Amino acid sequence: MTAGATRFADRLVDAIERTGTPACVGLDPVFDRIPGAARAGTHSEADAVEAFCLGIVEAVAGMVPAIKPQSACFERYGAAGLRALERTCAAARRAGLIVILDAKRGDIGISAEHYAAAASRLGADAITVNAYLGPSTVEPYLEAGLGVFILVRTSNADSNAVQSLDLTDGRSVAELMADLTVVIGEDHVGHNAYSDVGAVVAATKPDDAARLRRRMAHTLFLVPGYGAQGGSLETVRPLLDAQGRGVLVTASRSVIYPPAMEDWKAQVASAATRFADEVRPLWRRDS
Amino acid sequence: MTAGATRFADRLVDAIERTGTPACVGLDPVFDRIPGAARAGTHSEADAVEAFCLGIVEAVAGMVPAIKPQSACFERYGAAGLRALERTCAAARRAGLIVILDAKRGDIGISAEHYAAAASRLGADAITVNAYLGPSTVEPYLEAGLGVFILVRTSNADSNAVQSLDLTDGRSVAELMADLTVVIGEDHVGHNAYSDVGAVVAATKPDDAARLRRRMAHTLFLVPGYGAQGGSLETVRPLLDAQGRGVLVTASRSVIYPPAMEDWKAQVASAATRFADEVRPLWRRDS
Repeated sequence: MTAGATRFADRLVDAIERTGTPACVGLDPVFDRIPGAARAGTHSEADAVEAFCLGIVEAVAGMVPAIKPQSACFERYGAAGLRALERTCAAARRAGLIVILDAKRGDIGISAEHYAAAASRLGADAITVNAYLGPSTVEPYLEAGLGVFILVRTSNADSNAVQSLDLTDGRSVAELMADLTVVIGEDHVGHNAYSDVGAVVAATKPDDAARLRRRMAHTLFLVPGYGAQGGSLETVRPLLDAQGRGVLVTASRSVIYPPAMEDWKAQVASAATRFADEVRPLWRRDS
Repeated sequence: MTAGATRFADRLVDAIERTGTPACVGLDPVFDRIPGAARAGTHSEADAVEAFCLGIVEAVAGMVPAIKPQSACFERYGAAGLRALERTCAAARRAGLIVILDAKRGDIGISAEHYAAAASRLGADAITVNAYLGPSTVEPYLEAGLGVFILVRTSNADSNAVQSLDLTDGRSVAELMADLTVVIGEDHVGHNAYSDVGAVVAATKPDDAARLRRRMAHTLFLVPGYGAQGGSLETVRPLLDAQGRGVLVTASRSVIYPPAMEDWKAQVASAATRFADEVRPLWRRDS
C-alpha cells in the first residue's frame, strides 16, 4: 500500500459512505461526442479530451465517490493521450474522487509489475484486471498497493461464448473466476470486511447474479451495464450482499453526454446527481 | 487492412521466408539490466530504454523477421515511455521488421476500437489479444487491418488454474480459445493459407501442444517460453503444422541481455544470430 494510506477497499467504502451513494462515473471520452463548448480553445483531439474530462471531474466531484477512466480512449492519442489521462487522474484525486483505471490488463511477471507501476504513476487507486493467465496476473497490483477488480462476468452479449460455459466440476467459467477472486482476495481484507480484490460483474446478466454473489459473499462488485446497456435497479439488486451493499455501479454515456449541449458542465452535474440519487438505495446506510 | 498493404499473415510469412527463420526478438527492456554503454548520454530511464531498443533494432534487423515489444515496459514511463515505444516501432518498420505489439488487450465495443487505433498509430503490424470477453474483443483489430494473436495457452505455470480446466463438452478452456481463434480467423486467410488471427501457444506446455495444433491446423502460433523459460526445439516441434511450419518463436532475455557488456550491440547481434540459427529448422523451406 502507498505510504500513510488506508487500503483501497476502505478508502472506497469511506467515499461511498461520505457521498451516500455507490455511483461511479465512467470516463469514456470520444472526440466526436464532446460538446463544442468543451472543445473551445483546444488545439488537438487529445487536448479536447483532456478539457472535457477535467470539466466532468469538476462537475461530479462531491456527488459521486469514484470515477472510472477508460484507458483505451486516452491511449489512442499516444503520448498526448497519456498526458491527458495523467492530468485527469490527478485532478480527480485532488477533488477527492477514487480513481479506478479501466485498463483490463492481464500479464505475468515483470510485465505485470510494469503495468502496476504504470497505474501507480497515473495515481490510480485501483485497476481492472483480466485473470485468464492465472492468479499471478493479479498479485503485482496488490503488491504495488493498488486495488483490483477481476473481470468475472462482463456486460456484452457475446461474453457468453466464454464466461457461460460449464466446467466438469459444476462451475461456469465465470464462477471459476469468481472463486479465484475470493482466494486471491483473502489476504487483503480491510476493516470494512471488504477485500482490495473486487470483481467486475455486469448488471446485464440477471440469471448469473445471485449465484455469483453467493460465491463472492464479501466481495466488492464493480457493476457495468447500468443505464445505456439495459441494466437497472432491478438487475443490480440481486448483486447486493447480505448487508444490502457491496456494489459500485458505473454509468458513462448517460452521465457524460447529456442531451443538451448548452451549459454542458451544469448538465453533466445534473445527470450525475440523477444517477447518484437513482442508485442511492443500492448501498444500505448504517442506522 | 491498411491501404496498399498485403495482409498481416502474408507479410509475416514473407519476412520469415526472406530471413529463413521463424525467430522473433522480444523487447522487454528493464532499466536496471540495460548495459551502461547503451545508457550513455541519456537523461532519463525512458530515454535509456529508447536508446537500448533502437540499438537492438539496429543489431537484429535483417537477421530475424519480427520483433515483439512488451507494451508494459514502456507504459510504466507514461507519455515519455509511449514516445520511446513509438520511435522503437517506427525504427523497426524502417528496418523491415514486422512489429507485434505484446499488449494483451481485451475490451469490447468502442474501447476495443480505441485500442486498435492506438496500436495502428504505433505502427504495429499485429497485437496480442485476450478473448475472455468473447469474439467481439478481437474483431476491431482485424477491421483496423491489424493481425491478432489470441492468448490460448500461456507459458506461466499458474495459467493451469484457468486454461487447463475441462469443460463439460470435452474441451479444456484453452481448447475453447483455440476454437474461437479458428472461427474468428476463417474470413481472414491470406494467400499463404494462414489467417491474420493467430494464437499464443507456449513452448512450455508439451502435454497440450499436439492437441492444440490439431484443433488449429492452419493457424500461426506465436510461441513464448523458448530459452530462458525452459522451452526448446523439442518442445516446439509438436507445435509445427503439417507443412513443418506455422510457428514464430520468441526469445527476449537470452538475446537482448548478452552476458558481456562490452560492445553490446555486437553481442546482441551474435545472440540474435545464434537464436535465428537455432530455430531455423522450425520452418521447413520450399524445395
